[in-house]
Amino acid sequence: MAITKFNRAVEGIIGGVLSSLSSIDEAQVEKMIDILLESRDKRILIIGVGRSGLVGKAFAMRLMHLGFNVYVMGETITPAIGKGDLIIAISGSGTTKLAVTAAEIGKEVNARIIAITSFPDSDLGKLAEHVVVVRGRTKLAREKDYFLRQIMGVHEPLAPLGTIFEISALVFLDSLVVELMHRLGETEEEMKNRHATIE
Amino acid sequence: MAITKFNRAVEGIIGGVLSSLSSIDEAQVEKMIDILLESRDKRILIIGVGRSGLVGKAFAMRLMHLGFNVYVMGETITPAIGKGDLIIAISGSGTTKLAVTAAEIGKEVNARIIAITSFPDSDLGKLAEHVVVVRGRTKLAREKDYFLRQIMGVHEPLAPLGTIFEISALVFLDSLVVELMHRLGETEEEMKNRHATIE
Amino acid sequence: MAITKFNRAVEGIIGGVLSSLSSIDEAQVEKMIDILLESRDKRILIIGVGRSGLVGKAFAMRLMHLGFNVYVMGETITPAIGKGDLIIAISGSGTTKLAVTAAEIGKEVNARIIAITSFPDSDLGKLAEHVVVVRGRTKLAREKDYFLRQIMGVHEPLAPLGTIFEISALVFLDSLVVELMHRLGETEEEMKNRHATIE
Amino acid sequence: MAITKFNRAVEGIIGGVLSSLSSIDEAQVEKMIDILLESRDKRILIIGVGRSGLVGKAFAMRLMHLGFNVYVMGETITPAIGKGDLIIAISGSGTTKLAVTAAEIGKEVNARIIAITSFPDSDLGKLAEHVVVVRGRTKLAREKDYFLRQIMGVHEPLAPLGTIFEISALVFLDSLVVELMHRLGETEEEMKNRHATIE
Repeated sequence: MAITKFNRAVEGIIGGVLSSLSSIDEAQVEKMIDILLESRDKRILIIGVGRSGLVGKAFAMRLMHLGFNVYVMGETITPAIGKGDLIIAISGSGTTKLAVTAAEIGKEVNARIIAITSFPDSDLGKLAEHVVVVRGRTKLAREKDYFLRQIMGVHEPLAPLGTIFEISALVFLDSLVVELMHRLGETEEEMKNRHATIE
Repeated sequence: MAITKFNRAVEGIIGGVLSSLSSIDEAQVEKMIDILLESRDKRILIIGVGRSGLVGKAFAMRLMHLGFNVYVMGETITPAIGKGDLIIAISGSGTTKLAVTAAEIGKEVNARIIAITSFPDSDLGKLAEHVVVVRGRTKLAREKDYFLRQIMGVHEPLAPLGTIFEISALVFLDSLVVELMHRLGETEEEMKNRHATIE
Repeated sequence: MAITKFNRAVEGIIGGVLSSLSSIDEAQVEKMIDILLESRDKRILIIGVGRSGLVGKAFAMRLMHLGFNVYVMGETITPAIGKGDLIIAISGSGTTKLAVTAAEIGKEVNARIIAITSFPDSDLGKLAEHVVVVRGRTKLAREKDYFLRQIMGVHEPLAPLGTIFEISALVFLDSLVVELMHRLGETEEEMKNRHATIE
Repeated sequence: MAITKFNRAVEGIIGGVLSSLSSIDEAQVEKMIDILLESRDKRILIIGVGRSGLVGKAFAMRLMHLGFNVYVMGETITPAIGKGDLIIAISGSGTTKLAVTAAEIGKEVNARIIAITSFPDSDLGKLAEHVVVVRGRTKLAREKDYFLRQIMGVHEPLAPLGTIFEISALVFLDSLVVELMHRLGETEEEMKNRHATIE
């Protein structure tokens, strides 16, 4: 059987991610970098649930490779967070209950909060000091998607559920890593030296 | 400070991922789909370490949403695997020690093994019944990257370490999910109903 | 240097655990077994944070070895939970925010809830259909501990933080496993066959 | 239905754990404390699979509460380990493949290795600089267990699979924590301050 859906899905996903990334506000990116650089000698806690949590963990690994003092909510070694520490919370909808609850606790102890979400007016977005809006499959995209699928005779979405938000957030954060490498004068070699040995 | 490195990194990553995906052999994709469909009433175990492990977990969630009986090595609920069960192992280099050791144990109990790797001749590749080659930052890409960076005056790589392999593998597997939805007649609604409630 | 504190701590911990276990109400144990047996063809979700979460995971592994359909909150393969499914939530204080929030969501979808806690009147205790009270270092114990330490000239507690609750909950749940083996006619051999192969 | 098996299992487990703990060699404990204190400004990596891994995580949390620089294999934030860093590997049998492989890699990079195992002559035991022997259900215990069960008319073991080793290792390590508190002059209050805030 031909795998035409596969090829269309690749195009749909890459197209959706490109569209999402091109809509990111550069001023929001710059401010996130500023806050990250201000947090070099603070603790950084990554919060996320489900596939957004996996994107957060992938970013956490790279922050560690860059020498940041970073932790992931829910893992064994997650220390106390307090005033001036930084929380980065990732949630497409901005309403994921456990992520919002965790961010609320962070706010109570006066941690700073950056939210990566499609919805700046969501519970999570409103809690945060700074929001970077990363679009997922927007309503427009969904209509366009529907239209394209009509033409193509495809009845499935080309990127189900939160796929576009998740991959866009991952590419966004990995691109931020390159900017941070540049700002901090870190080389790939130095990052490699901090990479886990036992794996 | 301007964030030009960020924008170049976005382009570098998306470009690298597109290049990687366009080099995937369709026959290898088809065979992977065939094996997955043959494994519908078997156990599927996802193996991966580090960021490749996170990509594996993201795929595992979607396989669960599609109704597969899927597990992740190293998590609490990982049952016995035996003859005819399927292991999907993800490793860019194909040499990650813990992934290779796990695949070897799988081979001893006569599980089937699919490897997602850049190197079909690696230890992992050679163990597998079937390999899907997903290219990372190839030597050529690294030279081109170096050349581009010379022109652009950028001294950092545009996608450090395994970034291109990891994101390419994620987009590849998410596209596979769309093909599987089609083959299995699964809708986004049905997938949503299987999605974790408590999060 | 002599390791006298070590030996006293062993005695302190074992003594505290024995005292905690002997105070468990048998009727509460029986009802928990009844609910577990009623949930054999349902989904069971284990909820816990920190060291209580680790105790929950240790129990989850054994429930899997006994053939139950069990999952752990926060892991990759955690499916939708609904009406009639069972949540087992573990929290010494019964106030751990993320555990309580998760149990609340479970209640909204009409899952059954068993709480393992020292405080039946806590937020978690009040949410639950059934509570098994497992005592930690009680106020009395703390005073006795203080008194003993005065006599012994030890200034550190013999079991810091939640240690007594956590180990007592673990021994309680492992003893429940033996009762369940008996009720279900499961042998150690059958449990071994369900044990993870790749490790 | 009466829950007599439950009560016998409690006695069987506590009895087995007490017997295991009383057989621990104090000189081995002292040397482990010495090595831990020598590793205060080094990295400590905890290695363990399955329920032994959970015991390791519970210990890792307490080492963090005591101010140690500790990590857990397989989690997101696990940095490079090198010469002079400390690995603590937990495996009842001392043969768990992934734990042994991980310890081997640690040995290659000249990390120090402590093994917690029932079998000092196992692959893991032989790799280690120092072994603390923690007995599980020994052959003798198994015979005694069989004998007791004959008398009691119980056909199930009172502590299936690795239960005795796992709980004994946990009580051993938690008692070590009290000794370390004493040696380091750490109070419960200080440990509480390092405890995760967001949970």
